[in-house]
Amino acid sequence: MKSELSESFFLSAGETNAEDEMSLPLLVSKLIDIATAHANSLGIGNPDMPDPDTGWVLSRLTIEMTEYPAVNTEYTITTWVEDWNRHFSIRCFCISDSDGKPLGYARSVWMVLNTRTRANAGLGKLNFDKSLISTRPCPIERQAKHISIQSQDADTYRFRYSDLDHYRHVNTVRYVSLLLNQFSLEKHDREMTGRLELSFLHEARYDMEVKINREMRKDDDAEIYSFFLEDMSEDKTPVLYARLFFRPRLRLS
Amino acid sequence: MKSELSESFFLSAGETNAEDEMSLPLLVSKLIDIATAHANSLGIGNPDMPDPDTGWVLSRLTIEMTEYPAVNTEYTITTWVEDWNRHFSIRCFCISDSDGKPLGYARSVWMVLNTRTRANAGLGKLNFDKSLISTRPCPIERQAKHISIQSQDADTYRFRYSDLDHYRHVNTVRYVSLLLNQFSLEKHDREMTGRLELSFLHEARYDMEVKINREMRKDDDAEIYSFFLEDMSEDKTPVLYARLFFRPRLRLS
Repeated sequence: MKSELSESFFLSAGETNAEDEMSLPLLVSKLIDIATAHANSLGIGNPDMPDPDTGWVLSRLTIEMTEYPAVNTEYTITTWVEDWNRHFSIRCFCISDSDGKPLGYARSVWMVLNTRTRANAGLGKLNFDKSLISTRPCPIERQAKHISIQSQDADTYRFRYSDLDHYRHVNTVRYVSLLLNQFSLEKHDREMTGRLELSFLHEARYDMEVKINREMRKDDDAEIYSFFLEDMSEDKTPVLYARLFFRPRLRLS
Repeated sequence: MKSELSESFFLSAGETNAEDEMSLPLLVSKLIDIATAHANSLGIGNPDMPDPDTGWVLSRLTIEMTEYPAVNTEYTITTWVEDWNRHFSIRCFCISDSDGKPLGYARSVWMVLNTRTRANAGLGKLNFDKSLISTRPCPIERQAKHISIQSQDADTYRFRYSDLDHYRHVNTVRYVSLLLNQFSLEKHDREMTGRLELSFLHEARYDMEVKINREMRKDDDAEIYSFFLEDMSEDKTPVLYARLFFRPRLRLS
């Protein structure tokens, strides 16, 4: 059992975004994969859950990148557990290039979902050795507090079959694509998404239609978009609070 | 240089569809990745292109599965070149479970795209050793001939930022999600997509809106849906011809 897991990948052309770099949805997907692999190697993954009707889900995710891996290059993701309590596991990540230079970091908050009750089952039944908690620094800020947003001309989206995963709720990666799709190709060409914050409030299910409320404020060199997704039915269930930071691109080939 | 490349993967919960098996978009993504890795290892991948403004793109893809890898299991993908001519490379795949039992096969037709002219650049400049062509069988049928379909009540879709890749055209994986999204969760729960055929006619670009013409016929134990995607602008450019075979699920946990 190791307190850190590192894996290296080659970024192929089929995997990049239109700007020829690692796409944010792919990065999120890789972070979830390596988190899963590390948890499994520590004997605390889904295959080792005492109750088979429970499993790990993301509660929060923060990613901050100064640069994304470029097409046809190798990159490495390293993950470690930063903290562990009765309710949540905090897991961090460093994304680095083939020279070992950090390109960015991520911090994730995980909980164990009971898939019958759809509630937080707690981590009490998992046999985690706390000496595996790593003191390696993860130099990115915690998430901002949620604010309530109601926008007049909000876009809407109805979740479809491909948005669902194992838990029969909308997968994290699909929320990221949905947020990126709120902006034009021209904006993505001109600016990079320097930071992403996701905070899951309630699960979104098949055929749910959400209102994508958003607002923007400028902060030094970044445009900060806050999003608040809510169920459009009478329940008005809050689904997701998110922030996306756009920064001018330093280089665009 | 080896005529075959095999890679094994663990299917984690975050990667599955709502039926707890490998999703078809993920399978397509993995096939493209391993094809890329094999081509790179043979010195005929994008990083070795004599003209940097050229790169491999899929022209056709056929997948036929009797079963999909299940969550929390290992699976293996093996790829080899079945044929090679001046215009196209034919590459096949076998997907097998951890016991080596084949779960399905795929056949893909690749061409080299000139990203300036958007035309087929041919394979003449690539230094491929034809002794690497493998005689391993790929026991699935070739694609059916295209038929023209015009449906009255066709759904439409406008391509967004996240649908694009390196080539600034719509990525294969996103077409697969779009096709699956034409059917309800209930149908996917009841039936499996036993076979997929994709045949790319013209590239779809950012903000293009397509009409998703479709028709269905029954054939023995399968429902066969044919799709014809065309640009809704005056050009009426044909984009994609596809077929999706639904078969009753043998087991659903």
